[in-house]
Amino acid sequence: MSAGSIFLWELLGTAVLILLGTGVVANNVLRRTNGNDTGTLFVNIGWGFAVFTGASLAAPSGAHLNPAITLALAVADKTDWADVPIYILAQMLGGILGAVLCWATYKLQFDDHDDPAGTLGVFSTVPTIPNKLWNTVTETLGTFVLVAFVLFSPAYKQADGVPDFGNSALGYAGVAFVVLVIGTSLGGPTGYAINPARDLGPRLAYAFVLPIKGKGPAQWAYSWVPVVGPLLGGVLAALLYLAYPSA
Amino acid sequence: MSAGSIFLWELLGTAVLILLGTGVVANNVLRRTNGNDTGTLFVNIGWGFAVFTGASLAAPSGAHLNPAITLALAVADKTDWADVPIYILAQMLGGILGAVLCWATYKLQFDDHDDPAGTLGVFSTVPTIPNKLWNTVTETLGTFVLVAFVLFSPAYKQADGVPDFGNSALGYAGVAFVVLVIGTSLGGPTGYAINPARDLGPRLAYAFVLPIKGKGPAQWAYSWVPVVGPLLGGVLAALLYLAYPSA
Amino acid sequence: MSAGSIFLWELLGTAVLILLGTGVVANNVLRRTNGNDTGTLFVNIGWGFAVFTGASLAAPSGAHLNPAITLALAVADKTDWADVPIYILAQMLGGILGAVLCWATYKLQFDDHDDPAGTLGVFSTVPTIPNKLWNTVTETLGTFVLVAFVLFSPAYKQADGVPDFGNSALGYAGVAFVVLVIGTSLGGPTGYAINPARDLGPRLAYAFVLPIKGKGPAQWAYSWVPVVGPLLGGVLAALLYLAYPSA
Amino acid sequence: MSAGSIFLWELLGTAVLILLGTGVVANNVLRRTNGNDTGTLFVNIGWGFAVFTGASLAAPSGAHLNPAITLALAVADKTDWADVPIYILAQMLGGILGAVLCWATYKLQFDDHDDPAGTLGVFSTVPTIPNKLWNTVTETLGTFVLVAFVLFSPAYKQADGVPDFGNSALGYAGVAFVVLVIGTSLGGPTGYAINPARDLGPRLAYAFVLPIKGKGPAQWAYSWVPVVGPLLGGVLAALLYLAYPSA
Repeated sequence: MSAGSIFLWELLGTAVLILLGTGVVANNVLRRTNGNDTGTLFVNIGWGFAVFTGASLAAPSGAHLNPAITLALAVADKTDWADVPIYILAQMLGGILGAVLCWATYKLQFDDHDDPAGTLGVFSTVPTIPNKLWNTVTETLGTFVLVAFVLFSPAYKQADGVPDFGNSALGYAGVAFVVLVIGTSLGGPTGYAINPARDLGPRLAYAFVLPIKGKGPAQWAYSWVPVVGPLLGGVLAALLYLAYPSA
Repeated sequence: MSAGSIFLWELLGTAVLILLGTGVVANNVLRRTNGNDTGTLFVNIGWGFAVFTGASLAAPSGAHLNPAITLALAVADKTDWADVPIYILAQMLGGILGAVLCWATYKLQFDDHDDPAGTLGVFSTVPTIPNKLWNTVTETLGTFVLVAFVLFSPAYKQADGVPDFGNSALGYAGVAFVVLVIGTSLGGPTGYAINPARDLGPRLAYAFVLPIKGKGPAQWAYSWVPVVGPLLGGVLAALLYLAYPSA
Repeated sequence: MSAGSIFLWELLGTAVLILLGTGVVANNVLRRTNGNDTGTLFVNIGWGFAVFTGASLAAPSGAHLNPAITLALAVADKTDWADVPIYILAQMLGGILGAVLCWATYKLQFDDHDDPAGTLGVFSTVPTIPNKLWNTVTETLGTFVLVAFVLFSPAYKQADGVPDFGNSALGYAGVAFVVLVIGTSLGGPTGYAINPARDLGPRLAYAFVLPIKGKGPAQWAYSWVPVVGPLLGGVLAALLYLAYPSA
Repeated sequence: MSAGSIFLWELLGTAVLILLGTGVVANNVLRRTNGNDTGTLFVNIGWGFAVFTGASLAAPSGAHLNPAITLALAVADKTDWADVPIYILAQMLGGILGAVLCWATYKLQFDDHDDPAGTLGVFSTVPTIPNKLWNTVTETLGTFVLVAFVLFSPAYKQADGVPDFGNSALGYAGVAFVVLVIGTSLGGPTGYAINPARDLGPRLAYAFVLPIKGKGPAQWAYSWVPVVGPLLGGVLAALLYLAYPSA
């Protein structure tokens, strides 16, 4: 596939993923919405099916939508290293675009919110107990599970890293279920970024693009944790995949 | 397929979709039900699987059930323009019929409800913060995601706009998951009509058909937003589909 | 298939369906359980996947598990009328057996419960507003949706009433999703029996078999509603199926 | 498949299953998490999709992940008795490893928790009303349902006990749905261990490995119930399977 096509599919898929994922947090957090304070399961379900939707749109490029997956597929020799930069660029721009679309969806609610300084959490992850080392461990383990599923699950084991779901309307439901359970089970301490583009893209949008009146700081000191942890988890999963016997 | 067959399948599917969709809101809102005040996730899940059920019943006609989908499929050259009016007529009548069946299901609860003037929200959407422009943006974005899924997902990419799910009991689960996540993620500001027949059909039933004692106004001043927004979102998705490289 | 085989598969499937379905209500209602007071969505999800599990076990006999489905399939000429009595007998006995197994699962909690007179609702349905006519309408509509799905969904349209899901682990997930949404959307007024064996079987067990100390009345005056309503809804769906054009 | 390969796949699958399963309880129980006190449905959904994820990773070895399933498959002549010890050893070690990884994920929250003596429940099951006989009945029934599904469901009925899900991304979703409903419906009294490795492995980790300050007792007097009950339920399901007519 041409670099231009990879760019277009990954941009579309990641933008929709982030629109829907940050959208469910906005619905839960902002005070004048139908979903205000619905809770953690609501948010986990939203992110899970956000991945289903975004991945379904980006099937032609393999629906990576995540630099940790792209890097792991390259380490596992399933994606060409030459394509890695275009994948990651599209994912980052998709993350920024999705955050802007989320803001547009909830523009009236952002204007009305009683705690505008606390709105970073709609877009990017914030740890419940800050600790760079252990927060990184948590993000590494969460991403390890995600990438291990992508690499080991029979449906994904294609030579070129592009799964063949044929005509299935549910091809990407498996990865949605895995993202859902990573949220319920490993999301407690850090909010499961498990994807550098999901966290850094919206953080850049929050800091430099979104016109939210009274918005708070983007917490740059923490911002490398949800980038490094996921990349590390992805690489560990790829190395395990290479070390395991062929099925 | 004959116009008569299109009419019958779309009528059946849309009526069941609206019966189940407005039904979950009735269960959540009316005071003497088993589901009273269960919450937003409950309503989102109900609408999601309402689409699954209605679409499964209407498979022969392609299960549009939504003028925004019919229009987008016509723009994308996947539905014959000559069939568009019969699709939309059946969808609108199905929306009215579904609302009547919902009322019959909850007749005792409507009679008993302590706020009959506030029952419009069972049938049609009401924005949490009224603003014609931004409410339209929200409805446009929500419908864009729905129609983009229908157009781009491999399972739907049939030449004639009728997906071929073969023998699959779960053919329409994908679109149910997408409707679920549109609800959790983009439904906060306007209640995600994302379908003119879903909103205008029940609104007409509420205003002119249903014998709810003490019912409130049908809020006609807002009623064009959940018609125009979805149609606009559907057309935008179709134009993007035409502009994208073939997968 | 021999009558004996039909009996064994329907007995197994219905017993597991009722064990799991009444089990989730017990978990929600009884005071010393992990699930106490979790809510209506919890109960709806439990019943939905109870159907998935019971139906998966009874695939060889077509997994009717419900006299309303058996009757409708006979009306639609998809089940032999001569087999109808053995189906229904097995379903009723399965309903009783499942209720006994539920009681055994929660024996300690029944002994400990602070409102033993209010435990009928674990096993059989009770309307929130009693009214024989409108309660019947609600049960008829709910069962109509269930049976219409079974008859119209492509996966079920086999000549002999036995769906062919091949090797699919998810063959019966579709009907589980439909039962889930009937619960969320149409279960508010009467608790969606939508199955005479699901309601009457456990009611017989409650009245005559289960050794619950201080148990309350079995409310026989209402007991015909969740039998007649579902049978009527099933027949209406079968007649509509016969009247519709072939897809 | 070689014993070494069985060991590696079962170890991986069970470790991820237990990491995700105990993780959702940690998220629900520990006080400084995003999921604190989200509730029983949240925990049930987490365990259900934990099974989906772990099983998807361990597809090559048949994804037993549970000594009760391995024993039942041996009784039903679908697994070689000579392989049973290596399956069970890997499952037990996987259970211990998963518990350690859960602790690492939530290390900061364990250090901060206000009731460290009550943290056994994150890792192993505790009955709400202790009674060895009836608690065993509950665990036996829950496991019977799980193993009956594995044995009777068409997708699993392979001669060698290894299901053939082909390319399906959702092959193991069926068993996830069954574990979910066992949780909602039969998990009320004992917390549904339904798997000796799921309960005894993490209990050993809790007692002897995890450095949780102020941790409580491992409740060894109860520990045999979630081992014996599941094994008994699995064998009963296998015997029923052998006694039933072939489908």
